[in-house]
Amino acid sequence: MVIVMQAGATEAQVEGVIGTIKGFGFQAHPIHGVNLTVIAVVGDKTQEHLEAFQLLEGVDHVARIDKPYKLAARRPEIVGTTVIEVGPAIFGGSRLTVIAGPCAVESEEGLREVARGVAAAGGAMLRGGAYKPRTSPYTFQGMREAGLALLKMASQRTGLPFVTEVMDTRMVDLVARYADMLQIGARNMQNFPLLSEVGQTGKPVLLKRGLSSTIEDLLMAAEYIMSTGNEKIVLCERGIRTFETATRNTLDLSAVPALKRFSHLPVVVDPSHGTGHSWMVPAMAKAAVAAGADGLMVEVHQAPERAVSDGPQSLTIAEFQALMEALQPIAKAVGRSICP
Amino acid sequence: MVIVMQAGATEAQVEGVIGTIKGFGFQAHPIHGVNLTVIAVVGDKTQEHLEAFQLLEGVDHVARIDKPYKLAARRPEIVGTTVIEVGPAIFGGSRLTVIAGPCAVESEEGLREVARGVAAAGGAMLRGGAYKPRTSPYTFQGMREAGLALLKMASQRTGLPFVTEVMDTRMVDLVARYADMLQIGARNMQNFPLLSEVGQTGKPVLLKRGLSSTIEDLLMAAEYIMSTGNEKIVLCERGIRTFETATRNTLDLSAVPALKRFSHLPVVVDPSHGTGHSWMVPAMAKAAVAAGADGLMVEVHQAPERAVSDGPQSLTIAEFQALMEALQPIAKAVGRSICP
Amino acid sequence: MVIVMQAGATEAQVEGVIGTIKGFGFQAHPIHGVNLTVIAVVGDKTQEHLEAFQLLEGVDHVARIDKPYKLAARRPEIVGTTVIEVGPAIFGGSRLTVIAGPCAVESEEGLREVARGVAAAGGAMLRGGAYKPRTSPYTFQGMREAGLALLKMASQRTGLPFVTEVMDTRMVDLVARYADMLQIGARNMQNFPLLSEVGQTGKPVLLKRGLSSTIEDLLMAAEYIMSTGNEKIVLCERGIRTFETATRNTLDLSAVPALKRFSHLPVVVDPSHGTGHSWMVPAMAKAAVAAGADGLMVEVHQAPERAVSDGPQSLTIAEFQALMEALQPIAKAVGRSICP
Amino acid sequence: MVIVMQAGATEAQVEGVIGTIKGFGFQAHPIHGVNLTVIAVVGDKTQEHLEAFQLLEGVDHVARIDKPYKLAARRPEIVGTTVIEVGPAIFGGSRLTVIAGPCAVESEEGLREVARGVAAAGGAMLRGGAYKPRTSPYTFQGMREAGLALLKMASQRTGLPFVTEVMDTRMVDLVARYADMLQIGARNMQNFPLLSEVGQTGKPVLLKRGLSSTIEDLLMAAEYIMSTGNEKIVLCERGIRTFETATRNTLDLSAVPALKRFSHLPVVVDPSHGTGHSWMVPAMAKAAVAAGADGLMVEVHQAPERAVSDGPQSLTIAEFQALMEALQPIAKAVGRSICP
Repeated sequence: MVIVMQAGATEAQVEGVIGTIKGFGFQAHPIHGVNLTVIAVVGDKTQEHLEAFQLLEGVDHVARIDKPYKLAARRPEIVGTTVIEVGPAIFGGSRLTVIAGPCAVESEEGLREVARGVAAAGGAMLRGGAYKPRTSPYTFQGMREAGLALLKMASQRTGLPFVTEVMDTRMVDLVARYADMLQIGARNMQNFPLLSEVGQTGKPVLLKRGLSSTIEDLLMAAEYIMSTGNEKIVLCERGIRTFETATRNTLDLSAVPALKRFSHLPVVVDPSHGTGHSWMVPAMAKAAVAAGADGLMVEVHQAPERAVSDGPQSLTIAEFQALMEALQPIAKAVGRSICP
Repeated sequence: MVIVMQAGATEAQVEGVIGTIKGFGFQAHPIHGVNLTVIAVVGDKTQEHLEAFQLLEGVDHVARIDKPYKLAARRPEIVGTTVIEVGPAIFGGSRLTVIAGPCAVESEEGLREVARGVAAAGGAMLRGGAYKPRTSPYTFQGMREAGLALLKMASQRTGLPFVTEVMDTRMVDLVARYADMLQIGARNMQNFPLLSEVGQTGKPVLLKRGLSSTIEDLLMAAEYIMSTGNEKIVLCERGIRTFETATRNTLDLSAVPALKRFSHLPVVVDPSHGTGHSWMVPAMAKAAVAAGADGLMVEVHQAPERAVSDGPQSLTIAEFQALMEALQPIAKAVGRSICP
Repeated sequence: MVIVMQAGATEAQVEGVIGTIKGFGFQAHPIHGVNLTVIAVVGDKTQEHLEAFQLLEGVDHVARIDKPYKLAARRPEIVGTTVIEVGPAIFGGSRLTVIAGPCAVESEEGLREVARGVAAAGGAMLRGGAYKPRTSPYTFQGMREAGLALLKMASQRTGLPFVTEVMDTRMVDLVARYADMLQIGARNMQNFPLLSEVGQTGKPVLLKRGLSSTIEDLLMAAEYIMSTGNEKIVLCERGIRTFETATRNTLDLSAVPALKRFSHLPVVVDPSHGTGHSWMVPAMAKAAVAAGADGLMVEVHQAPERAVSDGPQSLTIAEFQALMEALQPIAKAVGRSICP
Repeated sequence: MVIVMQAGATEAQVEGVIGTIKGFGFQAHPIHGVNLTVIAVVGDKTQEHLEAFQLLEGVDHVARIDKPYKLAARRPEIVGTTVIEVGPAIFGGSRLTVIAGPCAVESEEGLREVARGVAAAGGAMLRGGAYKPRTSPYTFQGMREAGLALLKMASQRTGLPFVTEVMDTRMVDLVARYADMLQIGARNMQNFPLLSEVGQTGKPVLLKRGLSSTIEDLLMAAEYIMSTGNEKIVLCERGIRTFETATRNTLDLSAVPALKRFSHLPVVVDPSHGTGHSWMVPAMAKAAVAAGADGLMVEVHQAPERAVSDGPQSLTIAEFQALMEALQPIAKAVGRSICP
């Protein structure tokens, strides 16, 4: 924490701030510059609290220096990326791990067809929504527990573990009984009770970046889960909200190298939500792999034009197969394999 | 819904789209323009589903025409603004309704002092957090039920009803037993299970706009609550996320006239979260009233520089009193009163 | 400038950075915190250059501390707001100064009608575009010099000085021969040769904030003009680009108190471009005055539905007159007058 | 253009709008839906003008349907990507074209060293700024004509053509006498007189996307240049402004597939400005190639920690060589070659 005094701050104001800092039990190191005086605050502290120092007389602003996350940060004892295992699916190793499946579970037949296609194409994991966060209360809200049962069945048939979203603290136990990995959706990235509850299941968690969340916000959300003792977290970049309207969201692929530098957690990319258009998915999936992502999450539907949700951004099974083939040389070029 | 064909779309492609539209049970009205053909789709439909028509051959894009919210929309039977009563506090009438109080309940003495100050200055309602959505798991998370009890006590002493945030579906009943109005925080604006649960209590709801939510998103969140039969909703503009770093958020005051035009629900503005700096609060509070807001929500603390959260944006009790006086002529200028 | 070392930085890395700092002729003050070491750099320096220190071994990042603008900043010798006079129109005094007129000059009759209406309603200055920055090369680009001549004529008839945009360094002399004040449009806020050229005319300048410009960017653009010796600058908030689509731009009224705190230059608000909808203009104009703006710039057209540009956001003459009346009590409430 | 009537619009209002449409010489096709009436407008028209129809009584809003650009759009007569030749450098063919060089020309020796390194590593073109758009008037503004001469010399020595930015209409002729390709910088993307002037030189143009420009805005800027008869345009994605602060800008790689679909012009990506950090450049350069970019523009400096500008985002010559090698298998994976 560095407290920056106003250009014309008096010596008395500087002394006042130093006194307040010491009153809180911290050390104060004033440095008199050419134009400004700054005061470095040293101590083991809750920085957020100290931000109120901006209210002290003569203070211009308070600059935070430390990163607020610790467990999610790069730590000396962890070399490279932490490996998260979800049954046979492994995130953070040399293999590229592709999660695929429909936006929502709609029917047994449809899910079975997609699951078979995903497995055959080399997907490592199945996805599908049983509880759907829909912006309209008048649209399909998911098959709920019946959807979970269908996912379990499809998972057992194909040998692919599955991830599904949980939106409500009251549902965490139920969903955790079925799913191999719990997804925190973008709209719940800062639903703190849900983060804690999901963390406490001990299950691996797929944590999606919020629509207006910075990379630091995402790591703080991971920190919430990790503070429950559960460090099995896979981060997911899925696009942020910007002024651009040609895409549903703006996929921020620079989050991949940034997260790799700031954190030891594996990172996957969701080019389906990240773009909103199936015709963009292959280009952005390839880009994500080239940028160093540990995996992908892709929406696949047996008949996208009839999907009850996210049709415009869902690949057909054939398109998904073609994508998996196209990804192979890219994966190899960055030192990864992709075959199951 | 209007389907816009690509510039070079063939007659066969147009026929194909028309056939698909009819197959779904809708009417199709093609219009051949100079450069393009568009097809208007008529029927009582779930528009979201039809967006997948962008995948049909020859289609350029699908333009939504209808507004997706109905109960929250301006309706012929409702003239002006719906009046929401929270005990003696009234939103949507000729009186400007000011909610004030600390970010978080920290102690009995502090809360009592603030509540007294708010009441004396003409505030109509008390606010205070008992469960706090903190971005760090290592910071103060609220006094929980003890905080609710203190709020109740302060409310009874001053005669001011109180609003407090609920973040977890499991806590809704408990919080509803204490509070006069339930707040949905910005980070939970699209926490759909919470919206439903809060709606079902029948209590008045203060619904804050999400950090990256459009005005339409906000009205869709209101629609979620209203679809439970509870129409007692007050909308709250509290700033959106933009590239600007001089403010914590960018307070979008144009949301006030926009919401007034698109909806019949009352609108309040939170200049504290909307700016993040107490020195900006008076200017933006005055601006909000001039823009036509039905009320304000302002953070007030007995000693902001010692507040455990939101200190930089909290007014002192004296600053709040001065603000209330300064608001009087502005309120009067737009045909409102403010005295209790 | 504060250099923040990485969490695990070695003593040798710290020494290396200190050596480099000294090699550039600055002083280095290392402070060893609980988790991190930071090094404060003292000296009269070009901060931008020093940002490359983030490349040195062991450095996490470089935090800028100083404000990069000097002339545009609050300065001890200037109390309150600098007053800028444009003939009889005065910005920064106790009177609220309203600039109004059409987006583009279209015809002699139309301009005359609007100018008369603006003067009669108490407007202090006329606006109108002769050279128009249009996003399409196929639309009306302005009447050019003929438009300037019409503005001059309307100005002489009404006694209102006028402001008009200049977009091209080659046109600055010509436009300056006619206009009382030169406007730098939002899209040219970082057209640095134009800023210099306009500054050198010595004419008062209306500087509009760019669509994606921070408040600091705006003040740096002002600094460019001021570094030519011309300090007659009026800043104009006109909306920034965000994800919201209900408005053409998001009018950032918090820029008013922010600019008032960081700078001594007067500030006006353009609610027409700031919203894009004439039905929003009155609410936002009132809000701007309540927030402390020194003036407004409003688009007015004799027949908005037939305007060649910006029709949707233009007020009729009658609407402008009604707005001016509605502004009077708001202006008075914040200690301003508005009558001519 | 589709005019959407308000939910409760009367038949008289619909008739009024139809009358106005016909009065402007267009055809009107009303379609009566379940909830709404829409009126499609047919005719060869300036759409922008018609947006003022939102002011007519009973109208809710006006939805634009046509794309406003024509020459920059995908056209039936152009298959694939238009190939732009800049001497031996070719954009839009099977070879990936890499432009590299320093942010600013600083000295003969430095430029010579970088140019040699770029050529040796397989770069196809040299870049370097002689006129720099600096946000501060107090920092290095470029070597001006002397810088152009140095670029010319380095170009002749290495055989690499060069691109350099022109910021001022008055400088276009001078810069065009030296440079092989003219760059329009991000801050000038909507400097319309400059677009016209540069277009008229007939020289190839590198057009960078503005910080807050949509993909449509970028194509409209290209349209401006193309309307002068000069179709030799290479588009450049270089990051947009968002709320994220971990990067200087948010590199929007989805612009690559979007521009490829909407336009026939070649697209390059600038990962240096797009991220602001040299450690991110390799990941994003690889991602850009995987996404289908026709080339890259990369900042390279002989000693980035001593660069007068953009040091933090500049690669060393050795880092550039390593990047070029790493790009080879990615290029090959998407059917491109990269060797010179």
